[in-house]
Amino acid sequence: MTIALSLPNPEKLIWWTKHLGKLLPEHDVKPADRITRPEEVRYAVVWQPPAGLLAGYPNLTATISIGAGIDHIAADPDYPKAIPVVKTIGPDMTQRMCEYVALHVLRLHRQLPDLQDAQQRGDWHQIVTPTAPNRKVGVLGLGHLGRSAALSLQALGFDVAGWSRRGDAPDGIKGYDTSQLHTFLARNDILVCLLPLTPDTRGILRADTFAKMPRGASVINAARGAHLVEDDLLAALKTGQISRATLDVFHTEPLPRSHPFWAHPDVLVTPHIASLIDPISGGEVIAANIRTLDAGKTPDALTHVSRGY
Amino acid sequence: MTIALSLPNPEKLIWWTKHLGKLLPEHDVKPADRITRPEEVRYAVVWQPPAGLLAGYPNLTATISIGAGIDHIAADPDYPKAIPVVKTIGPDMTQRMCEYVALHVLRLHRQLPDLQDAQQRGDWHQIVTPTAPNRKVGVLGLGHLGRSAALSLQALGFDVAGWSRRGDAPDGIKGYDTSQLHTFLARNDILVCLLPLTPDTRGILRADTFAKMPRGASVINAARGAHLVEDDLLAALKTGQISRATLDVFHTEPLPRSHPFWAHPDVLVTPHIASLIDPISGGEVIAANIRTLDAGKTPDALTHVSRGY
Repeated sequence: MTIALSLPNPEKLIWWTKHLGKLLPEHDVKPADRITRPEEVRYAVVWQPPAGLLAGYPNLTATISIGAGIDHIAADPDYPKAIPVVKTIGPDMTQRMCEYVALHVLRLHRQLPDLQDAQQRGDWHQIVTPTAPNRKVGVLGLGHLGRSAALSLQALGFDVAGWSRRGDAPDGIKGYDTSQLHTFLARNDILVCLLPLTPDTRGILRADTFAKMPRGASVINAARGAHLVEDDLLAALKTGQISRATLDVFHTEPLPRSHPFWAHPDVLVTPHIASLIDPISGGEVIAANIRTLDAGKTPDALTHVSRGY
Repeated sequence: MTIALSLPNPEKLIWWTKHLGKLLPEHDVKPADRITRPEEVRYAVVWQPPAGLLAGYPNLTATISIGAGIDHIAADPDYPKAIPVVKTIGPDMTQRMCEYVALHVLRLHRQLPDLQDAQQRGDWHQIVTPTAPNRKVGVLGLGHLGRSAALSLQALGFDVAGWSRRGDAPDGIKGYDTSQLHTFLARNDILVCLLPLTPDTRGILRADTFAKMPRGASVINAARGAHLVEDDLLAALKTGQISRATLDVFHTEPLPRSHPFWAHPDVLVTPHIASLIDPISGGEVIAANIRTLDAGKTPDALTHVSRGY
């Protein structure tokens, strides 16, 4: 059985092909552009596959996303919608996302940018911040990563709430559902976006969202660039409605050289590293999911593009 | 009964006098320089008291330190050594220290300074760091603050060890005792100093300490300035033996304008804000300790300058 690999970065494509080949010796693992008999492809392991690629495999039984999101597969208008998609969520990805969220919430909470500005001026400027229990943090999206990040923030002492479709939240986290978005936004000093990208969540970080938050609140986006209306953020930073933003994801990646975020004093740009998939542990998760499918069973992380995430 | 107050900052002295006066209406709370009958002073509440001040109160029964350290009292050669000292450790101070340590360990762990340098260059430079379970962090000092900080780091996933006189450590933290300092130093990618300042710990962060750590390790000092031999750190940063330092405390505070730490690219200077005592909750802890003493009981935080911490 053939496994087709597709990734936009040629070096990563070679790396993943070799790595999965070793982990799955019973399969024939090949880059998509080397496949001469598409009818033999049973699985495709992909990140941002070209439109139409997957529709060209008549016997495809599952597509594996190299990552937690499936929006890059759902974006292909020709994707054969009956074919399930398996997300890759390893413990390392969850760990990395929790670290990123904890670091950047703490950085904003403790006003580290102001302390660093003071250092640049040689100014001994003591700032007393509230303690974490007096800081309200909201997490948009309570999927696997969102729940884990919310619990990490709670363990650090923050007053944490989460927003999800049904408002289900882990113990100790205040849950808000779709109908309560305004109340949720109004409470948060720091808002963290960890939503899946779907037609409902695209552009959710926009002017009227910012307007509902407390004046001077901060925003962290570690989900997808398309969650954010970039011009609306620039406008909200200009008026002070939003005081700072920490962004790991962008409409265009790498972020173009000329983009105003790079030099903005109140925007921290990180290059999509919040939860980079680690090929070592990520490869193991993918191999285990393929073996589950081979055994005729359903991996926990199986979904469909019609669901959207 | 009179309570004498002494703090070097005149504004803070007025603030604390009013605040403690309200919390302890049964006592006469006065700044030390307004006291005309020293024989009536039963308690002294102090931060960096002038040498000889406390020896001038013949009926003093306890000195209360406005903070977790007592080195600023032990530094007075005339201090009447039989008089106990009560440290002030409130839940807010512990919370603040845990936040500081978590933030700055995460910042170094995730190489945020390198990402910020890349942003300044407009360079989309992805850095994959190990996960926290693969990062070894060591905490020097496992007193109340050290233990709490070590447990916060453990909750974030770090591989945490602690060093204390007897090597006692909380569950899940590897404990090292005095005789095992070299082994302890050799394991840590990031070293956090939370020791009390005593004759044994003064200057513990010096050239031969740095030499025993893994090349390129980082240091965080949130204890006392005198733990660090500042010139030794500058030399270790120059050779790359130490890659970065985060310092909240200094030999001279405020840090003098001309000090090389201010402009050093690998030193983050914070102005002694890791765990600033909050007069609201700190005042409540002090008032409760004074009432415990009034009732003839011993506060948990009671110690003696002969013990040193």
